Order: sequence, then structure tokens, then C-alpha cells
Amino acid sequence: MANSTALLTDHYELTMLQAALRSGTADRRSVFELFPRRLPEGRRYGVVAGVGRALDAIERFVFDDEVLAALDGVVDRATLDRLAAYRFQGDVWGYAEGEAYFPHSPVLVVESTFAEAVLLETVLLSVYNHDSAIASAASRMTLAAGDRPCIEMGSRRTHEEAAVAAARAAYVAGFAASSNLAARHRYGVPTTGTSAHSFTLLHDTEDDAFRAQVGSLGAGTTLLVDTYDIEAAVERAVAIAGPELGAVRIDSGDLGLLAHRVRAQLDGLGATSTRIIVTSDLDEHAIAALAASPVDGYGVGTELVTGSGHPTCGFVYKLVARESASGDLVSVAKRSVDKESVGGRKYAVRRRSASGVAEAELIGVGHPPRDDGDDRELLVPLVRAGEIVGRESLDAARERHLASRAELPDEIRQMSRGEAVIPTVGV
Amino acid sequence: MANSTALLTDHYELTMLQAALRSGTADRRSVFELFPRRLPEGRRYGVVAGVGRALDAIERFVFDDEVLAALDGVVDRATLDRLAAYRFQGDVWGYAEGEAYFPHSPVLVVESTFAEAVLLETVLLSVYNHDSAIASAASRMTLAAGDRPCIEMGSRRTHEEAAVAAARAAYVAGFAASSNLAARHRYGVPTTGTSAHSFTLLHDTEDDAFRAQVGSLGAGTTLLVDTYDIEAAVERAVAIAGPELGAVRIDSGDLGLLAHRVRAQLDGLGATSTRIIVTSDLDEHAIAALAASPVDGYGVGTELVTGSGHPTCGFVYKLVARESASGDLVSVAKRSVDKESVGGRKYAVRRRSASGVAEAELIGVGHPPRDDGDDRELLVPLVRAGEIVGRESLDAARERHLASRAELPDEIRQMSRGEAVIPTVGV
Repeated sequence: MANSTALLTDHYELTMLQAALRSGTADRRSVFELFPRRLPEGRRYGVVAGVGRALDAIERFVFDDEVLAALDGVVDRATLDRLAAYRFQGDVWGYAEGEAYFPHSPVLVVESTFAEAVLLETVLLSVYNHDSAIASAASRMTLAAGDRPCIEMGSRRTHEEAAVAAARAAYVAGFAASSNLAARHRYGVPTTGTSAHSFTLLHDTEDDAFRAQVGSLGAGTTLLVDTYDIEAAVERAVAIAGPELGAVRIDSGDLGLLAHRVRAQLDGLGATSTRIIVTSDLDEHAIAALAASPVDGYGVGTELVTGSGHPTCGFVYKLVARESASGDLVSVAKRSVDKESVGGRKYAVRRRSASGVAEAELIGVGHPPRDDGDDRELLVPLVRAGEIVGRESLDAARERHLASRAELPDEIRQMSRGEAVIPTVGV
Repeated sequence: MANSTALLTDHYELTMLQAALRSGTADRRSVFELFPRRLPEGRRYGVVAGVGRALDAIERFVFDDEVLAALDGVVDRATLDRLAAYRFQGDVWGYAEGEAYFPHSPVLVVESTFAEAVLLETVLLSVYNHDSAIASAASRMTLAAGDRPCIEMGSRRTHEEAAVAAARAAYVAGFAASSNLAARHRYGVPTTGTSAHSFTLLHDTEDDAFRAQVGSLGAGTTLLVDTYDIEAAVERAVAIAGPELGAVRIDSGDLGLLAHRVRAQLDGLGATSTRIIVTSDLDEHAIAALAASPVDGYGVGTELVTGSGHPTCGFVYKLVARESASGDLVSVAKRSVDKESVGGRKYAVRRRSASGVAEAELIGVGHPPRDDGDDRELLVPLVRAGEIVGRESLDAARERHLASRAELPDEIRQMSRGEAVIPTVGV
């Protein structure tokens, strides 16, 4: 159970399975599609993240004895027996991790029996809705930061496990490092750290604190200089660490103004290579506003882990096709007001100009139109007959994101609100 | 490692420990306080949740071989040796779970050595910032819903583990049930479920789907009636299940208008006890707006798990007192712009009128003022010398929340934005 993901599921998926077993429809071949009806308001593009975590979740979606015992009272014995034998044996295609997405992009396509696919609904949506929300916000931040590194420091502002996933998603979207040690351990995300005000306050004087930190961590460390008086602290910091001091961190006040002052002071003290790291409720707009200030790195916390105003993506998981009584695969869609979905198994192509600029998201049922050489097919195989085939390194996803973002029209660099930067065509 | 929480930590806490070990300050007795500087904008009160989870996290904060191996390269050998022996041996007091909180409420007070207390910073903040954000939103929803049950259905919109904690926190704040099966297993949260559009679409006709569901789950089940045409579906639902049909669910459209229509239709069909459950991006405002409609229950998803616009609480964890070189405990506080904290170990009292209405949050350093019989002390012991003493049932927290909320002035029933409903006095 410690490793099973099978209970990260909604009650109704199990009772639907029970009812479908009874009606004889549980084994109908089915195609589910995970997609967004729209982008979060004002956003020009979204970023797919969580693919690797979703594959892990599928692999660990097993009903061992503890899980089955936990479902006593939820479903009947016949259903429990079926669950005991559950292994996902179907196929999954999806947008590769780091890829940009747009309204109606079929980010994930799951084909198997209804029984196998419906049970994965909640855990797949949880992973994609969370991780992609973080990556989508992170991508705007790294875009605004340009060549300056962004460091993820938001663990304390979100659920402790969401924090680990957020550090991973931020790295996919171009963050240089995280403070989260579990993300380092599980995913190889580089970690870094400075020190907290408590460390300075623990010591009898700021000098004592700086000496302790430099003595233990070396002159390359980052000293926090705003516990008492910034100017005095910067002077002390260089006096103690020497001009080789790695960096100073400013965590309060008018960061742009302070960065200019501290830069001048550091330069005056000969610490010309000492970097200035700023933190304090930064988001993509604050980062963009600091572009003209002598800042060397941004530590981002709350706004990163809460998706900068959009903590979830609105991905849904809908049955788009299923086997009929006669054995054919038929498209299906509900007709609910404002919540239509489009039936049928989709293709998805990023149409690009001859110069490689993205022009449209082509989505349709069936096979993609003839490729003129500049299109890029977006659905890649992730699971084949139950076997995970889509694993890759986090660095591969990170590189893909940078490449995918670089293809998008320049309008994405505007941090202002707008529509999707390319149209979705065909649905 | 599967059970250790020690890596749910920021890099800098470990390097601060290393530096403090070197400077000889690591074992200074220290008092950390977890508190909010303010409530989220517009909110009248907050709700403390996550206490039980935080106690679990403290108990499991151990550095086993796998964790120590993961920290290779983060800190030096002397620090790793110290961590290997780490067990929290200090004292913790806090607001009991379900209690209301206000600006500067000392929600948690941790007293131990600096080494022991500083390492818990991130995981404690993660748990409290997340769970209390959910409970604070949930409490407004259950208040707006009055006697009608709220059901938590948001798992798919948040990280898969945050979902479990959200279901737990919502239950503390008065939700009747959740869809999340892991919350049932781990915390005993009651679960419930209806069915999804995919279940209807799986079958050749809506009739087939309804028959399958009623046949398997009984007439008391909840049928989803908005896949095609609501009026036709309600007629079929009652024809198939009989007037004993438990409930119908409406998931789209103008819910108030539809509830009136469906109620009249159900009554006309003799299904006078069949309930109407509505879902579809509900928040506390939408729930309040449906008060005059014949709705019997609210299913709440996205807005619950994202804290209804405030996904995190802004709790911080600050050193407020520590041992000096001479062995005395001295108050400490940083002076950063706009981020002051108040030094010293606090008391916290809910001042109440003779008729039991909350009037103020009294917070100060030292001992509380003489009690006139109507005050309530808010800090209760949670950990004593490393031993967890604050465990209680989730139902106890749930009852406490209802009692604590009932004490607050009636203004909390207004869903409009406002200031904290009682003043914080003394800090």
C-alpha cells in the first residue's frame, strides 16, 4: 500500500466498475482523452508536466491485500476479485513532457477496456492538473528571467508532497534549482540554499552568524543581509568572506532599488563578482519588472507552487470512443451545456512555418493531414500493452520544453493577459 | 525512507545546521512560532487544520540510511552523524485542530534546541499552509450550505497526495463526505459517489446505463441526469428506479433554475423524497446563491482543493526566542521591512463575552491576563519532551470547529469581503 496508487481514486470509479461488470460493459474497448477545454484566463500557452510521474502512478496502480481490505464496503466481492487481478494492459499516447499545449490539446489518450481506463481517471488528472499548472507558471517566470537563474523555494507554501512535484515541474520548465531535498533524491533536481533569518537571530551578533556560515560553508555561500540593516550587513559580509563572497540575498523591501544600492556597495568593496539574489513573493511580473536591475538570480516561492494565480489546469478526462454492441469503435460525447466534448480518437499536430514558428494546433479525429515537413506530431507512445515505453530523463523534458517554447510566436514574451498564442484548428 | 518525512525539507535547513554545529550554537534552546501575519485578503477568519498530520510528520522525521545517503554532498560528515541520531525531543504547543485563527495567532509554538526545531520548518509549514487553506475555504462553504451537506469531490484538481489531505481538512471543516478513497482508508473520512458521464456514454442508451447502475447499486443510488436531456433523463430515472430513487445529480447549466424544474418534475412523478445534488465549479458564493433553490446537497471540487482563491495561508515559522551565551532565553526578531515579527514566547486567549461570543484574540508575551471565566486559552500541549500527546480523533476536531465557529460574531455569515471578524489585541 505504501507504494500503491490505487486508492488515490474517487469512490465512483469503483462503483461504476461494479455496475459495468454487472451490465457486461466493463470490458468494452474504450478511448479516454485528457484535455483542457481552455487555457487559464489570460494565459498564452500551457506546459505539459507530470508525464513521468503519471507513468509511475500507472505502474503502481495495483490492488494488493491492504488496498482490497480498504475497499470492503465500497464495492461487492465480484468487483474486489476483479480488482485483485487488475493491471493496466492498454495503450497510452500523450504529449511528451515539457511540450506546450493549447485549448483542446489531447494531452493524454488512454485506450483499453473501460474497466482499466476509468479507474485511472482521478490519479492521472491529479498528476497532470497539478504538475502542468506549476510548469505553466514556471515557464513564464523563466521566460521573464531570461539568462538569470530562477530557484524554486516554495515547498513550505504547499502540501509537502505537492512540493516535491512542484520542484520537479519547475525544473522541467527551466528553473535552475530547487530548495527541496526530496526532489533532489527522487528526481535528481539540483538543490541549493542560503540561510534564514533564524540563523542570524540565533547568534549573538550578525557578525557571529556570518562568520559561522562562511567558516562552515566557505566564501562561496550566500549570506542573507536584511535581518537588521542591509548596508551594514553587506559591509560585514564582505569583510568576513572577502571579495570572493558568492552572493548576498535580499528578502524584503524595494528589491529593484536595493539591488542597485547593494551592487554599487559591493563593487565599491571590490566584491564585483558577488551575486545578488532576490526573494520575496516574486512572480513573473515582479521578475520582469526587475529586468533592468542588477539582480543575478530569483528565488521564487509561493507564486510558483500555487501556479501564479492558476493552481490547477482544468484538464478533464472524457470517454471519447467505445466499443458498441456490434464490436465497432464508436465516437461518443455528452451534450451538457457549456461542457461539450468532441467524440473520437484524435491526432494532434503542431503546424509550423517554414522558418519553424508555431502557427496552429491541428487537432482532429482520425489521421493527421499530409505533413509538408514542418509539422510536428505531438502524440508519442507512453504505454504499449501495459508496458511503460515513454520514460525519459528529466533533462530531456527540460530541453524539450525550451525547444517547444522557442518555437512559439514572440507574443508569449509579453506578460500581459491574452488569448492562446496560436489557434486550435479542427475541433 | 518510504515513511520518513526528513527529506520534505529545504536544503538550507541542513546547511544552517552544519554551520550552527560549527559555531557551537546548534544546541541553544530556541522557540519557533508558526503564525500568519494576516488573513488572506477579504477573509474574516481562518481555520487551523493539519495538526494530526503535523504530529505524524514529526514522529516520522528520522534520518535512516537511505535519507543519510541522499544527503551526501549536501552537508558534511559531522552533520550527517548528528542527523543519524536525530529525534525531536522538544515541546510543541498549538491551536487545536479545527480552531479558528486570526492575524498573528501563534498557531504552533516549538521549543527545543535550534538544531531540532529548525529542521522541522518546511514540513510543518507545508502541512499547516495547505491543510488550513483548505479548511478555511471549506468552513465558508459549509456555513453557506447551512443544513445541506457538502461533499468533497476535488481530488482530480490537485496533487494526488494533497487531495487526500484536502479531503481530511474539508471533513474537519464540516463537509459530510469525500470522494477520495485514500482519505477513507487513512483517516476514516466517509466516502460517497455517484457516476460519471463516461458511464452513461459507455452504454448504448441512457436507459441501459441507469438500469445497470440501479441494478448493481440499488434504487438509493444517485443518477447523473445531464448527459443528454435532463427532463427525459429524470423521467427515465424514476421509471427505472421507482420513486425510491435516492438522488439525481445535475452537473451543468443554470443549477438554480434546473433544481426548481427537476424538483417539480420529481414531485410530479411521485419521487418526493428523491434528492437533488448539484455540482459544477461551486464555491461558497455559488452555494449561498442556491440557498433558495430546492437543492439537497452540494458537490464541491476545484474551489475546495484550491482554497477558493487562497491556496495557501501565508503561515511563517520564525525564531522568537533563544538561549543567549549566558544561558537566558532572550526574545529575538528581525527588522526587515514589512516583515516584522514579534519576539518572545506567546500566550493566546480567545476573549469571549458573557454570552459566549468571541470578542478578541489576545496575544502577548509571557502569561495570559487573569481569566474572568469566559476566556479560552488556545495553546494546548501537542508534544512533550518528544512524546506526541496531542493526538485526537478527526471527529473531535470536526466538533471543535463547529463550536469554535459558532462562537464567532454573526458577520462571518456574510460571504462578502471584510476584515478579521475579531481584532487581534496585544501584539
